[in-house]
Order: sequence, then structure tokens, then C-alpha cells
Amino acid sequence: MNIGIFGTGVVGQTIGSRLVELGHSVKMGSRSADNEAARAWVKSQGKHASHGTYADAAAFGEILFNCTSGRGSLSALEFPKRGDLNNKVLIDVANPLDFSRGMPPTLTVCNTDSLGEQIQREHPVLRVVKALNTMNVDVMVHPDRLRSPHDVFICGNDKEAKATVMRILTEWFGWESVIDLGDITNSRGMEMALPLWISLQKKLGTNIFNFRVAK
Amino acid sequence: MNIGIFGTGVVGQTIGSRLVELGHSVKMGSRSADNEAARAWVKSQGKHASHGTYADAAAFGEILFNCTSGRGSLSALEFPKRGDLNNKVLIDVANPLDFSRGMPPTLTVCNTDSLGEQIQREHPVLRVVKALNTMNVDVMVHPDRLRSPHDVFICGNDKEAKATVMRILTEWFGWESVIDLGDITNSRGMEMALPLWISLQKKLGTNIFNFRVAK
Repeated sequence: MNIGIFGTGVVGQTIGSRLVELGHSVKMGSRSADNEAARAWVKSQGKHASHGTYADAAAFGEILFNCTSGRGSLSALEFPKRGDLNNKVLIDVANPLDFSRGMPPTLTVCNTDSLGEQIQREHPVLRVVKALNTMNVDVMVHPDRLRSPHDVFICGNDKEAKATVMRILTEWFGWESVIDLGDITNSRGMEMALPLWISLQKKLGTNIFNFRVAK
Repeated sequence: MNIGIFGTGVVGQTIGSRLVELGHSVKMGSRSADNEAARAWVKSQGKHASHGTYADAAAFGEILFNCTSGRGSLSALEFPKRGDLNNKVLIDVANPLDFSRGMPPTLTVCNTDSLGEQIQREHPVLRVVKALNTMNVDVMVHPDRLRSPHDVFICGNDKEAKATVMRILTEWFGWESVIDLGDITNSRGMEMALPLWISLQKKLGTNIFNFRVAK
């Protein structure tokens, strides 16, 4: 499958590499067509990887991953032509983290709104599914790195899009438990889990953990 | 031990009943000395239960539980004499939920501050420990209601106070895993976990679940 990834950071690179490893073709998009991080990543990945602008990545991908920093997500999504977003599934992995006040980061939006909702509202032609934002990127694409059972949450307004994301998470990445929380407003809770995740990261001294809903 | 509980709702009643069952003496406090819910609760509990004003509960308790609604917590804590709060451990169970916009509730404070921090800031003589706010009240006092392992988080600025709360949670209530997240600023993450909890409650159709940090 052809997949477009927005963002050239560690999240975009790790998800992109896993997708290439699984046999998909990935175009990584950024603000400019000559992004150095993207070029280096493509070089490391071989012929199934390419890079370009956000518009190029959107045109290329049958499915899109938003791996930009949360602060940059809305402006990144202004680059593609509307027709290149039309009806596509956007898997929104981003967290609206604000590091401008130092550590720990706060959120640029929360409580009565969320980044997932903002993206869906600004781009009603997209089918936004929030997913994978509540764990470290290594855990995202290698859930078997944890010994005990753990969960990934998804939410979005389009059932078919969520079924597609469910398949990507389970069949491609190997997730055993995906919890569909409902419509895109549930992004609020998913994004607001970040401060607790950050507290836990500091406490545990590792990124390799995740939430489990115990029953 | 003599314990003061602020709040007469289901959380205060359930924690109070469990403490009485464990052999402690509990005074439930509210805005007025003749609160009907408190009187009915006392009647159901026998001689180790009593009720009075917030000031009475503070004077009575060697340890205090804040089980008021989050919106009412700061004003409830204005009632006691400062001397009756001095150096006491306050276990802050409250969540700053705002139901005024309908369901699901939002938070009255979050992101750059939290109720736990507000209480500690307003009452530096108290030793505030945030705890037990991330699960249903039945799970709080009966963690064995879940079949699989799960965690309770605590945070606060005073190590000795946290050691006291750790003992209450493990030895009194039966918690097997208590995670100390650090100082009181970690209340932000603990309180901001509520929207995800509410999404999960809706999804699962039950209150009887909790978070586990999977490793």
C-alpha cells in the first residue's frame, strides 16, 4: 500500500521504517521538498521510501499518518490540495505538546477541545482516526516489546476508517488489544493522558511501558 | 484512628464506611452540622461514625480525606481553623469536574495547574497527598474487585505523608501496587486522566475497571 507520512521526526521515521519493513511504500512529507532528515531516512530505507512536501505525501498516500509535532499539525495540513485529502484515512498520532514553558510540557489544547477534533473540524473531507498517541513510538510499532498485556486506544467519527486502522494496528503492527472509544471527541481523553504518561516516564526511567485497562 | 472526611456524597460515604468497618472512628463533615445525608450515614454505621461541620471533621481527624466535589473543595477547606489543619495529612480524592456544560464533564482546572496543587498552595500547613482519584469508589476501597493487577497513583510534597498514605492504601484497603509519581504537580496528570476514564466507562458499560501500567 502507498502511505503518506506527515513529519520527519523520530515518530515519522519509526512508523515509516516499520511500514517499509512490512512491504509498503512510504513517502515522508515535510514543509520543504529537501528536508535533510527525510533525505537521510530515505537513504537508509531503500527503494520503497521517498520524500517530498506535505502536499506530495498527501497525493501519494492512500492512507496518511500525522506524525508532526502537535503544534505544527494544522499548518502542515494546509499544504495538500483538498482533493488529495478527500475521503482519506488520517491516523493522527500527534500530541499537542507545548514545551515553551519548559519541562514537563503542557498541552496547547485540551479539556473542551483536542487536536484530533481540530483536525477533523478543519478538514471534514478527511476521516480522522486518533490512535497510538498514548505510548512511546517503539511500543507503537512493536507492541511485543512489553511482556504484559496492554492497550491501544482509537477514536474517530467514521466506522469504516476505524476498521481500517484496527486492521493496521492488529495485522500490521501486532497489537492484540485495540479499544475503540467512540467518536473523535474522545481525543480529549487520549491526549490528556499525556501528562500522566510523562509522570510515569520520569518515575519508571523508561519509555517502554503502556497503559492497560484492568478489569 | 480518628479520621475526618470532607464530603457526604457516595465517595465520602463509601470510604467512611470502609474505615468504620476497619475499626476506625470517622467524622463526616459538611457545610452544615445537620446535613441529612451525613445523619443517615451515621445512623447506618453505629457508634464509630459521627458527623458535623467541615470544621468539626478537621478538628476530629488525625488524617483527613477530601471527598467533596472538586468545585467545592477549596471553599470547604476555608471552614476549619488553621490549627486544626496544621501538619495533618489530607488525602485528596477529589476531581475538579465541571458538569455545567453537560456530559461528559470537563475539568475546572487542568494543564498548567490542578486541584491538588491549589489545595496545597492555599493550605501550606496541610500535607496534601493526591490519591485514589483515578478509579471508581468501590475499586478505591476494594481493589480486589478486579481480577487482574492494577495500580493506584499517589503524589505529594511530603515523603512521610506519602508513606502514611501508602500504608493506608496497602494495609487498610488492600492495594498491591501503589505508584508514587513524585511531588504534588503530578496531580495534573492524575486529574487529567479523568476524561479517558469517562470514555472507558462509557465504552465498557461499567465502573469496575482501572488503569494498569504495563511493562
